[in-house]
Amino acid sequence: MSTLILHQTHHTLSDFDGISNYLLENLKGDGLHLFPELFLTGYPLQDLCLQRAFIDSYQDHFKKIDQWLKSLPTTNKWRALVPGLHYELEENLLPQKIENVVFEAVPGLGLRKIYTKRLLPNYDIFDEQKYFTPGSGNCFYDFQGSLLAVHICEDMWASSFHQMDPCELMFGEMNEKNLSVKMLINLSASPFDDRKKKKRFERAKSISLKFKCPFLYLNRVGGEDEILFDGSSFIVSGDNVALAMKSFEKEIQSVQIEKLAGRYEHEPIFLEENTWEGLFSPRLDQTKRPAELETWTEEECADILKALQFGLQEYAVKSGFKKFLVALSGGLDSALVLAIVKLSLRPGQDVEAVYMPSIHSAILSTQLCEEMCARLKIPLRHLPIKFLHSTVKNTFTQTFPDKFDGLVDENVQSRLRGTLLYTRSNQTGAMVINTSNKSELAVGYSTQYGDSVGALSLLGDLYKTEVYLLARYINTKFHEPIPLGIIKRGPSAELRQNQLDQDSLPPYSRLDPMLEGILSYRYGKHELLGLGFDEEEIMKTLNLYLKSEYKRAQFCPILKIKAKSFGFGYRIPISKNLNYHLS
Amino acid sequence: MSTLILHQTHHTLSDFDGISNYLLENLKGDGLHLFPELFLTGYPLQDLCLQRAFIDSYQDHFKKIDQWLKSLPTTNKWRALVPGLHYELEENLLPQKIENVVFEAVPGLGLRKIYTKRLLPNYDIFDEQKYFTPGSGNCFYDFQGSLLAVHICEDMWASSFHQMDPCELMFGEMNEKNLSVKMLINLSASPFDDRKKKKRFERAKSISLKFKCPFLYLNRVGGEDEILFDGSSFIVSGDNVALAMKSFEKEIQSVQIEKLAGRYEHEPIFLEENTWEGLFSPRLDQTKRPAELETWTEEECADILKALQFGLQEYAVKSGFKKFLVALSGGLDSALVLAIVKLSLRPGQDVEAVYMPSIHSAILSTQLCEEMCARLKIPLRHLPIKFLHSTVKNTFTQTFPDKFDGLVDENVQSRLRGTLLYTRSNQTGAMVINTSNKSELAVGYSTQYGDSVGALSLLGDLYKTEVYLLARYINTKFHEPIPLGIIKRGPSAELRQNQLDQDSLPPYSRLDPMLEGILSYRYGKHELLGLGFDEEEIMKTLNLYLKSEYKRAQFCPILKIKAKSFGFGYRIPISKNLNYHLS
Repeated sequence: MSTLILHQTHHTLSDFDGISNYLLENLKGDGLHLFPELFLTGYPLQDLCLQRAFIDSYQDHFKKIDQWLKSLPTTNKWRALVPGLHYELEENLLPQKIENVVFEAVPGLGLRKIYTKRLLPNYDIFDEQKYFTPGSGNCFYDFQGSLLAVHICEDMWASSFHQMDPCELMFGEMNEKNLSVKMLINLSASPFDDRKKKKRFERAKSISLKFKCPFLYLNRVGGEDEILFDGSSFIVSGDNVALAMKSFEKEIQSVQIEKLAGRYEHEPIFLEENTWEGLFSPRLDQTKRPAELETWTEEECADILKALQFGLQEYAVKSGFKKFLVALSGGLDSALVLAIVKLSLRPGQDVEAVYMPSIHSAILSTQLCEEMCARLKIPLRHLPIKFLHSTVKNTFTQTFPDKFDGLVDENVQSRLRGTLLYTRSNQTGAMVINTSNKSELAVGYSTQYGDSVGALSLLGDLYKTEVYLLARYINTKFHEPIPLGIIKRGPSAELRQNQLDQDSLPPYSRLDPMLEGILSYRYGKHELLGLGFDEEEIMKTLNLYLKSEYKRAQFCPILKIKAKSFGFGYRIPISKNLNYHLS
Repeated sequence: MSTLILHQTHHTLSDFDGISNYLLENLKGDGLHLFPELFLTGYPLQDLCLQRAFIDSYQDHFKKIDQWLKSLPTTNKWRALVPGLHYELEENLLPQKIENVVFEAVPGLGLRKIYTKRLLPNYDIFDEQKYFTPGSGNCFYDFQGSLLAVHICEDMWASSFHQMDPCELMFGEMNEKNLSVKMLINLSASPFDDRKKKKRFERAKSISLKFKCPFLYLNRVGGEDEILFDGSSFIVSGDNVALAMKSFEKEIQSVQIEKLAGRYEHEPIFLEENTWEGLFSPRLDQTKRPAELETWTEEECADILKALQFGLQEYAVKSGFKKFLVALSGGLDSALVLAIVKLSLRPGQDVEAVYMPSIHSAILSTQLCEEMCARLKIPLRHLPIKFLHSTVKNTFTQTFPDKFDGLVDENVQSRLRGTLLYTRSNQTGAMVINTSNKSELAVGYSTQYGDSVGALSLLGDLYKTEVYLLARYINTKFHEPIPLGIIKRGPSAELRQNQLDQDSLPPYSRLDPMLEGILSYRYGKHELLGLGFDEEEIMKTLNLYLKSEYKRAQFCPILKIKAKSFGFGYRIPISKNLNYHLS
């Protein structure tokens, strides 16, 4: 019997000590140890992989592991497939070539490069062609008489853009040389999104059916600023799920190759072509008129909540925060943020809420904030801004002849709140959690340096309708932390009397699907008209979206839970002529 | 005689009407009209080139020009080389392939693709491999019996990383087929930096000597958020500069091919290898101990001032701003910003300064602000924050048991100023100009949402020592707009009594060269020690740099005047283990 040990690992980027210690402690016994993509460094590294200190430390780290392996007796029966970086340096120590590879670790012999990733993703958040050189061969690895086909992450997909289909190339060589492969192994560092689990699984199943052998998918766990890696490793053999590992938790599992036999009777169906749409997985039901946002299932809500909790903790722990701070307004966004933070707390951590009413804040807002904090046993601090607000107003009316009303008067309230919130954060060392949602971000319905402040955004990838969905899910599953009054009242910024979001924006039931069309399909006016939206609402939405690019450019990192999000993978110039979109 | 007409153009990104009208008005006479890289769309487009509305509008625009050309009599003697995008769309109208190409425009015939860019830059701010597919052939174009070799921008360089040298490939084909080329034409969209003009010219001269024919370099003019295109087109034939066009201004020039004969006796010297260091042009004199920042010549100061003035106007005009707003502190950074803005004003524009003293502001600061604004005839508004500051302090001490001192007390002053500044901006519609410099940004010596606010940063790519250089240059050339008292006083944030930058930071004479080593050479502790810096100061600098990534992530666009700048081309994860850099 040949054993495979799957290490679904969780390490901080460039934590070389932690990574090498893990290897030294865990490589033992009999079997083939498997690790996720770029296990030796973490992923994504971006420019880190070009820094001298990084390269030096990595080389030392690599040598340390290599020498430890060489010092072991060759009688050890285990082997390991350890993904990492392979550098070729010039004489001046600058990188001439960097490859994303798999090393074989052999006791008594050391580390040996056996495969270089062929398909380097280069869309959206991925920039691998900026740093890495692709490989040109397949990898068939013999372990105790079993032939295993090995590749890395994106290699399981196909790119029509790069005219590259690594599985097809592998399949071709297998047929040509009449190789009998026992298993296909994919070592991944693949970010979470709300549809990725299903997408990966369907693709793996199809490949398993085509290759007529089990497909092993091993993914890392980690939160790198906005990008979340969920693990969720699995083995599928034909129609049979042989192993399903945890999401967002490290885990070790062993399986025996011989016990994974499946049935490969069905024809493989390659549902997902790797087109731009396939990549961005839009959630728009285009059969409806007007088109509608597809809703999340209960299982998807659970996954998304888990992703947000995980991402929050990853950022907090790596940045050294033990306290959290949320500005509560009496509205749903801040209430949901506070509920998620509370549900995420670990021992030794705590959260504080601050309520900063202005002259326009309803009494109901105060009551709802108090009710929520009482339910969750969270301290609520009252910091009224009325007096500060009127002081600023007086100073301005005494100094300038210009009017102090409308947006001037509204934004100053929001910015004073930002100032007070960060003053409190400076006082306690708490991490300020942003409360904006994706709909607001898309149309610029927020005040720069005001309600848009924060170290990290939890809801910046959720449309307002999805904020409702997740709030209801949490209320159902966790004893109603959010008072129903908050969910039921109409959304308002409360920056002037009787203000409602709907005075300035199309209703979210139509705004959100329009935004999904614009962002995930890159639709314009023409396509949105075709989906049954109203021309006036389309133009209003496009106008607001196009003119708020400058606000998004200064926004904090957003936990990425969709295939297409604002943030690192969203690259739109601020300055441009808008006619092409509006005329 | 065969005439070349060089159009050093200046259009807004995606201004299809402006671009096609320019062609319709200017294509006439006898001769070959030349246009810069991606003339038909503008550059860089980033994700715009994937948007449906962009693709549709571009296709319409292209058809309009093509049909206009077809409608012209074939007796017209002119031709044109018009760079643009070439799309191959799938059935569902998604782009299957996008190329960065040159079209030949022929009266009576229309537009015809004759060349696809071979070397797609993909480092730093460049992401062309994300969007474009490279070409595989050379372009030799026959115009009235003269054979012209044509390529695009980066093709004049060589990439060891991609093992691609387009000039060498061109040269090879010329020799193989025994072609006699009259001129090499490079159509560019190449960003400005403080050394780029010289670097381009030296490379072009070497190529001219090697090919033994003139080298024509045509570049666009434009400011796209942070990225500035300077034009500065030229023709060099051997040792002879045959044409030098303006910087940062549109211009049309005609030359006759036959009059450009040069002498090609010298051997070409290819000084600049396209290594990572070549790309980032660091300004560090490593022969000194400790190493020193190389200084700017007077000519370079003039170029940089021009670049900053141009970039400011580009952003303002495209965003619709006619007023500017600067927070003056009595220190040098804000004084230099105000001077540059004043020197950049066009008819119909104006600038206002706001002075917001706190209890820690020296009387000297007030006097210097008043003196400066009097000299420049700029209205200075006094908005003291003392009362607001004490109001916040009182509220906090009444609400919380925690101390209100140190950073808490310092940051609140800065954030209250940010709030007042933006309140005034909301009142007048003025564009807030940020006053941070590159040294501050690199070590996080600023308050998030406080002095770091702004729509655009003028000085974010200048180290503090360069701020002094440019201030002295401006004072010499423009009747001393900045009072000497401002230049001579020690830098201070004035957020506590007797505060000086040097209390928290190494002296700028050592901090700045260390930062240049870290940023442009990607040096770590080991290399900085080798350059003669003090270990304690190195560790302090590295610590501050590594821990302030989160502040830079939310900073405004910075006018890019160096090869390596913070902003779009600087890609470092916030969350990581810092040991690799600090141990």
